[in-house]
Amino acid sequence: MSDDIGPLVDLIVNSEESGTDFDKEALQDQLEDLEYDQWALLLEALPTEERLSQWQLVPVEMQAEVLVDMRSDARLSIINTLPSDMLEQLFGRLSPEDLIELSDSLPEHLIDLALQQMNQKQRQFFEHSSQYNDNQIGRYADHNLLILPQNAKVYDALRLLRRDIPECTDALFLTDRAGRYAGTVPLHSTFGSPGHIPLVELLDEDAEPLAAETSLEESAEIQEKSDYVLLPIVDAKGMLIGRMTIKDGFQILRETHDAEQMARAGLSEDEDLFSPVWKSSMRRATWLGINLLTAFLASWAIGLFEATLQQVVALAVLMPIVASMGGIAGSQTLTLIIRGIALGQISRGNLSPLLIKELSVGGFNGILWAFAIGGIVAYWFSDMMIGIVIAAAIAINIVAAAFSGVLIPVLLDKMKIDPALSGSVILTTVTDVVGFVTFLGLGTLFLL
Amino acid sequence: MSDDIGPLVDLIVNSEESGTDFDKEALQDQLEDLEYDQWALLLEALPTEERLSQWQLVPVEMQAEVLVDMRSDARLSIINTLPSDMLEQLFGRLSPEDLIELSDSLPEHLIDLALQQMNQKQRQFFEHSSQYNDNQIGRYADHNLLILPQNAKVYDALRLLRRDIPECTDALFLTDRAGRYAGTVPLHSTFGSPGHIPLVELLDEDAEPLAAETSLEESAEIQEKSDYVLLPIVDAKGMLIGRMTIKDGFQILRETHDAEQMARAGLSEDEDLFSPVWKSSMRRATWLGINLLTAFLASWAIGLFEATLQQVVALAVLMPIVASMGGIAGSQTLTLIIRGIALGQISRGNLSPLLIKELSVGGFNGILWAFAIGGIVAYWFSDMMIGIVIAAAIAINIVAAAFSGVLIPVLLDKMKIDPALSGSVILTTVTDVVGFVTFLGLGTLFLL
Repeated sequence: MSDDIGPLVDLIVNSEESGTDFDKEALQDQLEDLEYDQWALLLEALPTEERLSQWQLVPVEMQAEVLVDMRSDARLSIINTLPSDMLEQLFGRLSPEDLIELSDSLPEHLIDLALQQMNQKQRQFFEHSSQYNDNQIGRYADHNLLILPQNAKVYDALRLLRRDIPECTDALFLTDRAGRYAGTVPLHSTFGSPGHIPLVELLDEDAEPLAAETSLEESAEIQEKSDYVLLPIVDAKGMLIGRMTIKDGFQILRETHDAEQMARAGLSEDEDLFSPVWKSSMRRATWLGINLLTAFLASWAIGLFEATLQQVVALAVLMPIVASMGGIAGSQTLTLIIRGIALGQISRGNLSPLLIKELSVGGFNGILWAFAIGGIVAYWFSDMMIGIVIAAAIAINIVAAAFSGVLIPVLLDKMKIDPALSGSVILTTVTDVVGFVTFLGLGTLFLL
Repeated sequence: MSDDIGPLVDLIVNSEESGTDFDKEALQDQLEDLEYDQWALLLEALPTEERLSQWQLVPVEMQAEVLVDMRSDARLSIINTLPSDMLEQLFGRLSPEDLIELSDSLPEHLIDLALQQMNQKQRQFFEHSSQYNDNQIGRYADHNLLILPQNAKVYDALRLLRRDIPECTDALFLTDRAGRYAGTVPLHSTFGSPGHIPLVELLDEDAEPLAAETSLEESAEIQEKSDYVLLPIVDAKGMLIGRMTIKDGFQILRETHDAEQMARAGLSEDEDLFSPVWKSSMRRATWLGINLLTAFLASWAIGLFEATLQQVVALAVLMPIVASMGGIAGSQTLTLIIRGIALGQISRGNLSPLLIKELSVGGFNGILWAFAIGGIVAYWFSDMMIGIVIAAAIAINIVAAAFSGVLIPVLLDKMKIDPALSGSVILTTVTDVVGFVTFLGLGTLFLL
């Protein structure tokens, strides 16, 4: 990372523990240069006590922005300690966009207070945005956009452009009297045009506004393909309620990725490095509980063969190999299919050739590893028959894994469940159970 | 996905199998509307035979772009079947940027041919870019940027702006006579300024060029934080060699994410849905082999307790529960720490409070699940002692998992190995071995 805040964390922890005045001055110098996003990262990286003492050092004019930029668990750990006059002072400064972001973390009376401090127009913005849920782009509409009436001319545009232009602006928008979106004018088209030309003549006919209900992920995809770095957002009535910039798209992409990684381990993306132990424990317990059910399922499958295990203990020793090879082979297929689904590439038409191809790959690797593992095991236990049994179980489990690796994500997708999240848990349960049952089953048939 | 090509895949496969003329016409109509990126997705989604027959239908003027946009395995499956005169015809049309993208997939003589078709300036661009490796932003420098000499005035800029402006342009760049980067002028600053003002007076002093050696991921981070939607790229001598736009940043982010998901399953991001069976099998075999070593390690650990297993077969039945609870608890910690490392938030200063917190969470969940599982098991096997043994093993393994979940990624990161890729394999090996050894070890001590 270009601006790693690790060394700063070290400096803070050291100077709190055994700080000389020299340390403290060095620290002070570095803190002065921090941007608000670095402050947010730094505070998140500190244990609760240090977090609260460093919070005191955030410059007053940055405090609101820093809070907005933090993940909500860490943010709450600070907000919950602030005295109410401090909170009231902080939230006089909030823009409608920031208030939306913070609204989950703030008590009702503070939201009301922040709303009172806003002017009529800002309040309207806030009310508009807060109608949408947190996976709809309308909620995050930014109000920093260039708008002109439908009958404006090129010189009106040029006059507007001479003022401060908001970041990421390569178009301006026309609205009718009621505020309904009436078209997109690419900025560059105004440069060469004479002043008296009506802007409607410069409209980009291909430009389409973004519906406020669009999901965040889809908005990011539309933004990526658009010719513009900002898109106008309209509500169901066609009112222009704000804009989405390509930087928002960037952030959506990062956060979606982040949330997905965390969700795979049963964690929330808001999980704080230093959240309170009991809170963190209770959250994680749920995921452990779900996993326990699948583990008991595997145990139950093994339990069916208790009598066999008693007589051929080598089976118990080798069980994990069969389950684990199936799990790995299955997740390779699963990963490929999940990507295909995400890209919209998997459908009825190519499902059966895909299944055939994956079963062939599974067959190839099944046989390859059946020979390898069978050979090693026969040598290890000086028993040809147990080598043959594990070889057969490996081959069967790898082929079954290929089959499940294709079908599980496709079925989950059909049931509108994100296969990237639950696919892996279900798959390994299947490969565990199939692995144990075939291996111990074949063992029962041939080794007793 | 907004433009899911699934239905089109179905239509193609159907019409190839039992196609009426009616089907074929309907298909033809839909294919005419495809953009080049949709063509790329569609071809990737088709089995080899259909892929090659549909390739014939790609409009000639789009063929090169479609190939550039495809993942390299699927691309090669087409290129390798094209006759040489066809290839020669295709690569007359390549821009330096596209040639860079394709250079790994093309035989030497075709690259030479494409170079011959370029003018002096394009060849120079190509040679400049190809000095950098495929993780350096210089390799992907786009040459579509507005450049003016250092002594240019505002009216020069305005004249330039009246022509066609490249996508994602919110600044122009000044160079000295030798072509060295001399500064960034934000476009909007030229609008209000009188024509005779020298552009150097409008320079943004804070704008910094991007070094061509910068890694892709870091470039995307810098782009995200920049005030501009495009960044100038300079080589080691300060020469302006091209630009990176925020759309490139978008693509980097998506591809990095994609590559990471695939790499976790031991797959390449270029892996083709319909790659040849033997090729795909051999690639996946390596990952299965690595995993087999870790599985044998677990087996070996179990093998140490063969005598115990022979006497207490319930231990064999329950083993997977201990291993799996440890694996899940460990990956929760691992995921949290990996994110912290990616954000630059983990350092010596907060490592020990973090370890203490995770060990506490592990302790809490260890004890919680020890009681739950111990109780269930004691009831299942009507044996108090085996309940106590598994309870102790669960508690120990979950705490050990928390410990490993913090330390493994930190150590990997110190060794410059990406913990997001190998962390999980190493962690589950540890939790398997620790789980089996404690459970069977305690069983040996207390149940014999």
